[in-house]
Amino acid sequence: MTAGPVALDLESDVVELTRTICDIPSVSGSEAPLADAVESALRGYGHLDVLRDGDAVVARTSLGRASRVVIAGHLDTVPIASNLPVRVVGSGADAVLHGRGTVDMKGGVAVQLHLAATVPAPVHDVTWVFYDNEEVEAVRNGLGRLARERPELLAGDFAVLCEPSNAAVEGGCQGTLRVEVSVPGVAAHSARSWKGVNAIHGAAEVLQRLVAYEAAEVPVDGLVYREGLNAVGVRGGIAGNVIPDSCVVTVNYRFAPDKSLADAEAHVRSVFSGFALEVVDASPAARPGLDRPAAAAFVRAVGGEPKPKFGWTDVARFAEIGVPAVNFGPGDPELAHTDDEHCPASSITACERALRAWLTGRAG
Amino acid sequence: MTAGPVALDLESDVVELTRTICDIPSVSGSEAPLADAVESALRGYGHLDVLRDGDAVVARTSLGRASRVVIAGHLDTVPIASNLPVRVVGSGADAVLHGRGTVDMKGGVAVQLHLAATVPAPVHDVTWVFYDNEEVEAVRNGLGRLARERPELLAGDFAVLCEPSNAAVEGGCQGTLRVEVSVPGVAAHSARSWKGVNAIHGAAEVLQRLVAYEAAEVPVDGLVYREGLNAVGVRGGIAGNVIPDSCVVTVNYRFAPDKSLADAEAHVRSVFSGFALEVVDASPAARPGLDRPAAAAFVRAVGGEPKPKFGWTDVARFAEIGVPAVNFGPGDPELAHTDDEHCPASSITACERALRAWLTGRAG
Repeated sequence: MTAGPVALDLESDVVELTRTICDIPSVSGSEAPLADAVESALRGYGHLDVLRDGDAVVARTSLGRASRVVIAGHLDTVPIASNLPVRVVGSGADAVLHGRGTVDMKGGVAVQLHLAATVPAPVHDVTWVFYDNEEVEAVRNGLGRLARERPELLAGDFAVLCEPSNAAVEGGCQGTLRVEVSVPGVAAHSARSWKGVNAIHGAAEVLQRLVAYEAAEVPVDGLVYREGLNAVGVRGGIAGNVIPDSCVVTVNYRFAPDKSLADAEAHVRSVFSGFALEVVDASPAARPGLDRPAAAAFVRAVGGEPKPKFGWTDVARFAEIGVPAVNFGPGDPELAHTDDEHCPASSITACERALRAWLTGRAG
Repeated sequence: MTAGPVALDLESDVVELTRTICDIPSVSGSEAPLADAVESALRGYGHLDVLRDGDAVVARTSLGRASRVVIAGHLDTVPIASNLPVRVVGSGADAVLHGRGTVDMKGGVAVQLHLAATVPAPVHDVTWVFYDNEEVEAVRNGLGRLARERPELLAGDFAVLCEPSNAAVEGGCQGTLRVEVSVPGVAAHSARSWKGVNAIHGAAEVLQRLVAYEAAEVPVDGLVYREGLNAVGVRGGIAGNVIPDSCVVTVNYRFAPDKSLADAEAHVRSVFSGFALEVVDASPAARPGLDRPAAAAFVRAVGGEPKPKFGWTDVARFAEIGVPAVNFGPGDPELAHTDDEHCPASSITACERALRAWLTGRAG
């Protein structure tokens, strides 16, 4: 006899719910027990249509509202570092939850679950998405899988990704391009170096261009994105007595969402004109879309000053299917993946209140 | 019953003797059969005192001459590359010996053996040295072992190392210093690069100094040494999305024998002032010593224009014990260690004639 899924009380205190789902381990690839518990709990609500796709769970209202919003979060975490079960320090409004997932991102998932259960008649139709494998290679990503295979499930006017953002709106995300700039040389014995051409010396020009580069600050939809062009790796050299015949500088360009991937690549090629360049990794940027009515209403409802998101997040997957998206969730993103990952209860409850105000139309 | 050593006929044709000893494999660490054959053959000559030390063999005349010269060569080779036994192409004066050791350096060893046997009354007393483990790490080097443990065996006014030099005198050798220049940084996520300090960008200045560096041409004892300062390696970078907190450039300085190791290190430190620098490898240079009477007589005897030696060789071990030394031997050093190692018979006989003229006082 197999035990059924863990029973979750979605209407209980959202901080307590966070703690409960943190204590159901769900390292990427092992999300099934948590996905089972989420699916089972959501199926208890008649106002939601619940679907399961692998270890992703989608729950939708169908109230015939004029607009539909998507509110998404991932169920998986990076590996546990002896930091479960959750340890609670302090109590009440001052409590802080310590442990894997408290920041990235079961606080956000708890807020989603609590609101899915307790807001049966939101002012927008809502598609709640809980997905798998965000913390691993992109090809396994559950949101990417849904976007490829069941894009209709992600359709909407606006999306909120409940990734940690210190309960502030972080709009869009920058894109990232990684290229290898190669400098050729001619090998020779280093005792007769004039018979060769030193590729590492040739790379001085590549590094000089990086040093001289002035990164742009780009306004997009009212947010200012700060770009960056940086060497993240360099390798060259064959042996201690050989003039190197090759040097490769790996460069990472973080670019604002006014640029497509093609724009970004063309820009990097112009910076390194005259050098061989190969793109080794690329992820598009996402515009914040704060000019759209649903997004503007969201920002008004949750309050505060929206900020640009510099890191890459899954909001770009929404952008690719034409849905503007923002990050908004409890916890400090700088603590994600650390052994001392921890989140104040107040950040979780603040997000819950803000999203509730938006969904119920009782905003600001 | 164990067979005795291979019998070598030292008075036979020197090219034939080269072929015979090439066909006795003696990869570093496995020199014993060749050392046995050399020792046994030399013991047949009453004008030589023969000593054995490990797989090194030393044979000396004791004629009470006013000067003593040391003539040295190593018995070992780099590993065989299906290039034994020796293949002879052409015949007579046009013959070319193909195979491991023909260049580095059994042609030179054959010349030594032939002269040791057939010049019983040289104008200088001669110490003939045949040693092991030249082609491997310095600590195993047989000449180094003799210099440390039995320096009296290497005493002399002048030394000739019969390493391949195209039968021309190559004087002294340049020194070599290898240092690691470290550039620190501060790690940060590459999406927020302004929070870090990019160590690879910091290395631009190190490479610029290398590019701007003008290597000296230094006259020493009448020979001009061409120096070199070169990056031979560079490494930096932690991950594709992290601003690197460290970049290390490995630099090799090949310096003329007017400088001590301390001079060389001070020079490199001045070039990279402001950067942390660690010496990882150092071998001193050796002056050609062509101003000494025995050396000048040698150059007159063998003829031709002496050249500087750019690569590092065991002549520096003689320099360390106060004996000026030159390289002089058959074969093209550029072919050493190659699979197609080969040496013209004419280069071997030219060296034999030149050294014989010097040792017998019948020089030009």
